[in-house]
Amino acid sequence: MRIIFFALAIAASRPALADEGMWTFDNFPARAVQQAYAVDVTPAWLDHVRLSTLRLTNCTGSFVSPEGLILTNHHCLESCLGELSSKDNSLMERGFVAADRRAERRCATQLADVLVSAENITAAVAKASAGLGDKAANDARKKTLTALEQACEQASAKAKSGRLKCQAVTLYEGGQYFLYKYKRYDDVRLVFAPEADIAAFGGDPDNFQFPRWSLDFSILRAYDHGKPAKTPDYLRINFAGPQANELVFVAGHPGSTSRLETLAQLEFERDLLLPTTLLRSSELRGGYIQFGRANQADQQLVEAPLDSLENGIKVRRKLLDALHDDSLMARKKDEEDALRLLANLSDADPWQQIESASARERTIYLPYTFIEGAAGFNSILFRYARLLVRAADERLKPNTDRLREFTDAALPRIEQQLSARVPIYSEVESLTLSFSLQRMREWLGPDHPLVRRLLTKESPDALATRLVAETKLDDSGVRVQLWEGGKTAVDASRDPMIELARSLDGDSRAIRKQFDDEVEAPITAASARIAALRFKAYGTRVYPDATFTLRLNYGKVLGWVENGVPVDPFTYLERAFERATGSSPFKIPDSWMSVKDQLDMRTPFCLSTNNDIVGGNSGSPLIDARGDIVGLMFDGNIHSISGSYWFDAARNRAIAVHPAIIREALDKVYGAKSLLAELEAQ
Amino acid sequence: MRIIFFALAIAASRPALADEGMWTFDNFPARAVQQAYAVDVTPAWLDHVRLSTLRLTNCTGSFVSPEGLILTNHHCLESCLGELSSKDNSLMERGFVAADRRAERRCATQLADVLVSAENITAAVAKASAGLGDKAANDARKKTLTALEQACEQASAKAKSGRLKCQAVTLYEGGQYFLYKYKRYDDVRLVFAPEADIAAFGGDPDNFQFPRWSLDFSILRAYDHGKPAKTPDYLRINFAGPQANELVFVAGHPGSTSRLETLAQLEFERDLLLPTTLLRSSELRGGYIQFGRANQADQQLVEAPLDSLENGIKVRRKLLDALHDDSLMARKKDEEDALRLLANLSDADPWQQIESASARERTIYLPYTFIEGAAGFNSILFRYARLLVRAADERLKPNTDRLREFTDAALPRIEQQLSARVPIYSEVESLTLSFSLQRMREWLGPDHPLVRRLLTKESPDALATRLVAETKLDDSGVRVQLWEGGKTAVDASRDPMIELARSLDGDSRAIRKQFDDEVEAPITAASARIAALRFKAYGTRVYPDATFTLRLNYGKVLGWVENGVPVDPFTYLERAFERATGSSPFKIPDSWMSVKDQLDMRTPFCLSTNNDIVGGNSGSPLIDARGDIVGLMFDGNIHSISGSYWFDAARNRAIAVHPAIIREALDKVYGAKSLLAELEAQ
Repeated sequence: MRIIFFALAIAASRPALADEGMWTFDNFPARAVQQAYAVDVTPAWLDHVRLSTLRLTNCTGSFVSPEGLILTNHHCLESCLGELSSKDNSLMERGFVAADRRAERRCATQLADVLVSAENITAAVAKASAGLGDKAANDARKKTLTALEQACEQASAKAKSGRLKCQAVTLYEGGQYFLYKYKRYDDVRLVFAPEADIAAFGGDPDNFQFPRWSLDFSILRAYDHGKPAKTPDYLRINFAGPQANELVFVAGHPGSTSRLETLAQLEFERDLLLPTTLLRSSELRGGYIQFGRANQADQQLVEAPLDSLENGIKVRRKLLDALHDDSLMARKKDEEDALRLLANLSDADPWQQIESASARERTIYLPYTFIEGAAGFNSILFRYARLLVRAADERLKPNTDRLREFTDAALPRIEQQLSARVPIYSEVESLTLSFSLQRMREWLGPDHPLVRRLLTKESPDALATRLVAETKLDDSGVRVQLWEGGKTAVDASRDPMIELARSLDGDSRAIRKQFDDEVEAPITAASARIAALRFKAYGTRVYPDATFTLRLNYGKVLGWVENGVPVDPFTYLERAFERATGSSPFKIPDSWMSVKDQLDMRTPFCLSTNNDIVGGNSGSPLIDARGDIVGLMFDGNIHSISGSYWFDAARNRAIAVHPAIIREALDKVYGAKSLLAELEAQ
Repeated sequence: MRIIFFALAIAASRPALADEGMWTFDNFPARAVQQAYAVDVTPAWLDHVRLSTLRLTNCTGSFVSPEGLILTNHHCLESCLGELSSKDNSLMERGFVAADRRAERRCATQLADVLVSAENITAAVAKASAGLGDKAANDARKKTLTALEQACEQASAKAKSGRLKCQAVTLYEGGQYFLYKYKRYDDVRLVFAPEADIAAFGGDPDNFQFPRWSLDFSILRAYDHGKPAKTPDYLRINFAGPQANELVFVAGHPGSTSRLETLAQLEFERDLLLPTTLLRSSELRGGYIQFGRANQADQQLVEAPLDSLENGIKVRRKLLDALHDDSLMARKKDEEDALRLLANLSDADPWQQIESASARERTIYLPYTFIEGAAGFNSILFRYARLLVRAADERLKPNTDRLREFTDAALPRIEQQLSARVPIYSEVESLTLSFSLQRMREWLGPDHPLVRRLLTKESPDALATRLVAETKLDDSGVRVQLWEGGKTAVDASRDPMIELARSLDGDSRAIRKQFDDEVEAPITAASARIAALRFKAYGTRVYPDATFTLRLNYGKVLGWVENGVPVDPFTYLERAFERATGSSPFKIPDSWMSVKDQLDMRTPFCLSTNNDIVGGNSGSPLIDARGDIVGLMFDGNIHSISGSYWFDAARNRAIAVHPAIIREALDKVYGAKSLLAELEAQ
């Protein structure tokens, strides 16, 4: 399960049901928990959990020792493991155990952020856009967010408490704006990772399935000025795990939900977004698999991108299923009608306004996706080139005039990405680029001006192969030179990938502006109005849609009933050996086979709960009432995927690694005694 | 555009609009043509056209000389060209020009059938199933059709007029049954084919597009007892072509439409059939493309299957779009409600019965598709194995007790396929088989009993590679031995592919029986009732859904308006050269480039008409009022794809090769003087 970002999302429409909800820490329903479970969730408990929880690049983690140890999923480290691998030595394949702290290896592009405080800026944003038309209001809103972020970071740089990352956060689709202030760790090192064969046991076939036997955990450590970070707020691991029906909490960063997109937006997803994305992903999947059939080294090269792609396919496939449920669509319509009736509108109908904007979006979706969305240029090297070309222009502008991803607050992250020395495999690059150029020609048509400009003299495959062979952007030194040289250097560059990005940028910016003005602006305005109507009708008994910001939810350890058959919430080690076939993705690694006799086969392996989580919650701690970790979230069951649109209380289940199997593995399989001692010292 | 077979189809619901309709020859609306165009369509004209038109294996063709010359599309001969090719010599790539008649080369698995007569057997079928429950009625119906076919073939074998192929035909979804009697040519030889680069100029990007420049024609010749067949009924080619707005007819074999599937059936297609098929096809497409990137020889190996696959993807993609049109779905609902109201039902509602059967179909669709539908065993070699294993059991049964595809009437075709010496490429076989085994594991789940049985010891790729390497079924001699040896030989075989097919057959037949009894039987019964209600309400002003049987429709040479811009119905040669890029699929072959100066650039290339055609009409003659050929149908525009569900009069257009470019090509590019002389002699 991983972050999947969709189009603009709309806040939840109706008051949450029991155990449903991705609550912000400032609006956690402690009273409901008290009533249902007779457990007090105190402000101190909330602060401690918040300060122990981390936002990783696209996942969640938590501190599990006072010296910066971080517990997260193995699948959250695919990038890091790839960056630290080479064609001959795959850490995905072999795993990694740091013999001691000096052996811990930095993840070049990993970040870890702790939410230190949050400031409500709703009034400031409202003031900036008051009285303006949709388009001007949208521009003013963005400028304001940039200005507030900048002021916040500048102030923190001077403060004693230390420099903070400040990020504007939109909640309730514009019903609330916050400035979230994070302490950022940009030196994060790999401490431990098991082999992919056991971490992702069951692979894509088992993904989003339960019962389950995946040891999907890994350990990082945050560093501060070159030393292990001091992290007084951390969570103890209770290796015994929880009981069935026990109250449990999940703190983490659910990535994106669309629980009250309007019907028009859901139809856009159903008709265009999901089918077109699924078609492209499935084709690329076939390309990767065939590529990997050549030999084992090639197979390892595509393992990580393939995992990620297959995850996205399964998610979108089930999302499309959900949107084909006409009764769900009818219910959404009823909810809209109910709120509309309560609202007693005197002016334009915001649902109608979104419908018009969505109709417009349908007409520009393909060029937007292939050109500005770069679906026609699927290549890491092209992304570098575009970043460099765009940044060269944007950095010359005043901060508040820039595209939001190039503000001063965003530049350090870009710099980290450009300067990271990561392996790039030209065979894979030319595969993905060739494929995406072909699909751009298919979907935009061979007579589209941009397609004709690029593909008249060369076939997609020839162009892709040449670009990848001739560009020097695989060298981080070259990238850093172009970054530091700014616009002069970029304009002077004869690198063919830079030339490509430069030649596209006018078209690309034009289609983006069209999208921003004709789709984003009216949808943002109308969504904010709907959010206001909903606050008026339901108060704060609603929770905001997920936005990859920190949330807390509660639930219990619980199975469910599948086709009349009860599913137990715990699995045990012995069954993993029974299901093993000897070949991936059902291969148990030699490290386990060789100590099989010493393992306790009744060790709990995974567990299911009814917590309301989605992609982005990967790596989240499952916490008991005392605040101890009793599980590590890594997935949901197949019914959890429709959680993007609504919470199916009867069948939506979250899946965690049980702490007991983590202990068993570190102790008996990997002999990671000092690491285990640090985890158990608390 | 090629035949795409879908699930059970239901007859058209409402009287046809002007120029819409795939009419049977016995119910052609000659009066409507007389009223609209002042042209008489006489019974003699109809007989002549019928006897000049051919059903090919999955296309249409027509006789164009008294000595058996057949005009059809290039893409209809992909199989034949592949069978006559080898890894080093691709006829797809190079084209083929027979220097004289002795050089004409037999297509090993091609058939050509002429519809000689048709006998209405509706009453006999009704009598056989009268008073029975759905399941028993379904069985009785099939036995009756087999018995009637058998009697017909036996009678014809003794008759002076010669042996006929007899096939039972279901029209109006059981509203009518016919016995169609064909004169069959099983010796059909390749006379002429251009290079794929010009025949499919524009490739997949241009497929279903217009304006268009594809020289999609080829020439075969029917043989009778080793000599060119005498074919007194044939169509003259009018190389000047038609005028804009001229009345034109298309005779041919539209494959399948679903213009009045019930809403429940359309929802089944939208929710399951189309998305799952699209996902699998897209992934396989990616696999083929990556396979072909290795070198040109490998690219040629997958060219034909890739073409076919991409065609299917484009069709299904647009079909899914059509079913996402909620207003269309609402209209279908309204049509159902209107007919239900007219019907004034006194007993069970047949629409409701179909809805229940469709709900059942959803639950068995995946195992049915992967096991009985062999989507889990995508391999030519496996298809041989299954044919041999099934036939061994079926041939021991009385004719009327057999599965319909193994009746005596069907056996000669099976024998032809098994004995044909066609090249099979093991690399491609293991690619498709490996892919499909993986997907079966994904969709049925790794714990499905059949999946566990097959894939516990070996990975899908290892199993596929081993089966393809070890089987001997690529040798037609081995296949013929097993065929002739019957059940004893098949049971004794240790060929691993035969063993696989044998081990699956029990499971596979069980799921098929479940489908037949629980889905097909109730849908057949309810559909026949709906058909009867429709006849009562609308008489014969409705036409039956397409069933790959002979139909005739009328229309005119016509463009349309696309996004406000008029599209001219004719294209010309010069623009093909302007659009050429030098690489496939926009490469104009050297044979054309070298004589470019001698070509008349104003030669018409393709044309569009508003005839109502679908896949299966490929290769159909476009006929003027005199009965001369004025075009060769090969495609429809993008709006024609929704023709599966309804006829969009404003935008649905059929696309033909213009006869003038055929003449120009044969004369100036290929120097096929004697062939041209034969075509022009008439």
